[in-house]
Amino acid sequence: MHHLRLIKPDGRELSLYARHEMTMDMVAPSPSAEPMNGNPHMRWHPLRGEWVAYASHRQNRTFLPPPEYNPLAPTSDPAAPTEMPVGDYDVAVFENRFPTMTPLAHDAPELTVPTQPGTGACEVVVFSQDPHGTLGTLPVDHIALIIDVWADRTAQLGARSDIEYVMPFENRGTEVGVTLHHPHGQIYAFPFVPPLPARELSQQQAHWDAKGTGLLADHIAAERSQGVRMLYEGEHAVAFVPICARYIYEVWVAPIRPAASLCDLTEAERLDLARALKTVLLKYDGLWNRPFPYLMILHQAPTDGQAHPEAHVHLQFYSAFRSEGRLKYLAGCEMGAGTFTNDSIPEEKAAELQAVAVTLD
Amino acid sequence: MHHLRLIKPDGRELSLYARHEMTMDMVAPSPSAEPMNGNPHMRWHPLRGEWVAYASHRQNRTFLPPPEYNPLAPTSDPAAPTEMPVGDYDVAVFENRFPTMTPLAHDAPELTVPTQPGTGACEVVVFSQDPHGTLGTLPVDHIALIIDVWADRTAQLGARSDIEYVMPFENRGTEVGVTLHHPHGQIYAFPFVPPLPARELSQQQAHWDAKGTGLLADHIAAERSQGVRMLYEGEHAVAFVPICARYIYEVWVAPIRPAASLCDLTEAERLDLARALKTVLLKYDGLWNRPFPYLMILHQAPTDGQAHPEAHVHLQFYSAFRSEGRLKYLAGCEMGAGTFTNDSIPEEKAAELQAVAVTLD
Repeated sequence: MHHLRLIKPDGRELSLYARHEMTMDMVAPSPSAEPMNGNPHMRWHPLRGEWVAYASHRQNRTFLPPPEYNPLAPTSDPAAPTEMPVGDYDVAVFENRFPTMTPLAHDAPELTVPTQPGTGACEVVVFSQDPHGTLGTLPVDHIALIIDVWADRTAQLGARSDIEYVMPFENRGTEVGVTLHHPHGQIYAFPFVPPLPARELSQQQAHWDAKGTGLLADHIAAERSQGVRMLYEGEHAVAFVPICARYIYEVWVAPIRPAASLCDLTEAERLDLARALKTVLLKYDGLWNRPFPYLMILHQAPTDGQAHPEAHVHLQFYSAFRSEGRLKYLAGCEMGAGTFTNDSIPEEKAAELQAVAVTLD
Repeated sequence: MHHLRLIKPDGRELSLYARHEMTMDMVAPSPSAEPMNGNPHMRWHPLRGEWVAYASHRQNRTFLPPPEYNPLAPTSDPAAPTEMPVGDYDVAVFENRFPTMTPLAHDAPELTVPTQPGTGACEVVVFSQDPHGTLGTLPVDHIALIIDVWADRTAQLGARSDIEYVMPFENRGTEVGVTLHHPHGQIYAFPFVPPLPARELSQQQAHWDAKGTGLLADHIAAERSQGVRMLYEGEHAVAFVPICARYIYEVWVAPIRPAASLCDLTEAERLDLARALKTVLLKYDGLWNRPFPYLMILHQAPTDGQAHPEAHVHLQFYSAFRSEGRLKYLAGCEMGAGTFTNDSIPEEKAAELQAVAVTLD
């Protein structure tokens, strides 16, 4: 993988990635030369025991740009610069112009609850130069490159002393609030291990302490031996509807070997993970022959410099639909009790997805 | 408070409540005489360490009834019975016809993760006979009656050995998935303390152990002494935008005295809590002169028969809007990391709500 690091006129970083050597004369544009002037902070929520991030400068961000303006497309008109240069890159990552977390955050207000500056990082990952594609329609090798990029960002961001956890994710579809259709994801890098990964890690740690094996590795072995919920089973990676799916059409994708982080995956594992990922994405879009709205979340080990034998990197897909065109609303029970109610059986939804034929390239 | 307990033709319970003595000749109808035949079960989610409820029979439930049919209105046509009789009740509670949890659940499937029958209870609380009202437009004394009903249901359900936690809540607005506009809420009674109340209780317990005071009581004292986020301050109850609001326009309502559960509240406390509640609801609807979509969640002590000096009953309101007509989507960061990002400052949103004048009756 080749990597070019550029700085935008407003000071933000732009990283360009490709399998081939890129031309060196690319210039990083920015929609505005004005430096980011937000100063997010965090407040401690004593009842829940967690941090809440406040970024009021985000209210001013571009919400619905004119349809012809795509900030993730290469800049074609120098008078209306986008976030991206013209050039021969395949994947790009840049710092969000309206970040919820930024290394520039400073001097949190003093309040009656603990506070801290909103340090960390919020990055945008441009999956491809083509505004019309989707993550799932990209070739397997291109998806593998995106996994390499996630791993590189995990290593780069994780090396910062103010960052404890790196989480790549994708919000996909207007149904989950996405207004920008150019294929892209995001990376949030937190100054702490956030509550849900922390919970998963503590569950994995307890299993590791009790049995000396990986919780997710054992789970994957059970899913494979039953087979009824499997969507992809390769040499190195699997995809399946988990037996304990909270969301209707929830899917997990993981390497079979319990690697703690993306950084620990071999090239062959990344390639097979890309195949598993593409399989899921094509099945989703093929289910009703329409773009399937989802949240895609990557969980891995913290970047605290410690060994994490309990951790097993994996992707979780949370679907927005309960059935074709019908949203699943997360309401009182889910958001107020934290208990998910699933009006389907994982085995039935797995069968529906199994029935969708896909071809990998 | 007067209470009449009736049984519907399909075996479900209907409880009618009023301040006055009710006529005794009411007959409980049901849209169908067929007994509930679902058998929900729960599966253990090992990575998150929590139960997930599966109720596939709920897929068959009435989703969009014809506009003239309101199952919560008194039955006017005996050939098309609703859930409610004609009569002189003010508030009613009945068992959900398509419950996620029911005492009839039995014989959970044996799987590779722990399972249990989906026992517990799911009840519907009809706030009023008037289909056009809302919780906030009801008189204070009527809202106090609803609080009495919640307390009665907490006591009744909590006395069952299969129930550990009783949670009244309201999903309000089409924006949060509500298709039935007759004013109503729900009560979910769980066979375990669900993850979010459990988390709040453990935070409160740690505070109690360290300081010998209530976490929420101390929090309320701090909010009152600062005053900037207060929406209602009565003799016995308060409402405020919490300093650590996760949702934009989030509001908490609580008695000032750290009562563990609704059952522990005096009549005067319930009346003032009703005033606080009505104040919040009128401010919400007055903000943009349109119905304000929200989730209203009540958290209290478990019904495990133990004393819970650490617990402090309270209501939390989670708003669906970030600004007028614009939804706040919970996406990758909230649902995948568990960290809320708030693009506003609680003090600003409190000021907006403070500026809405309301009149209590």
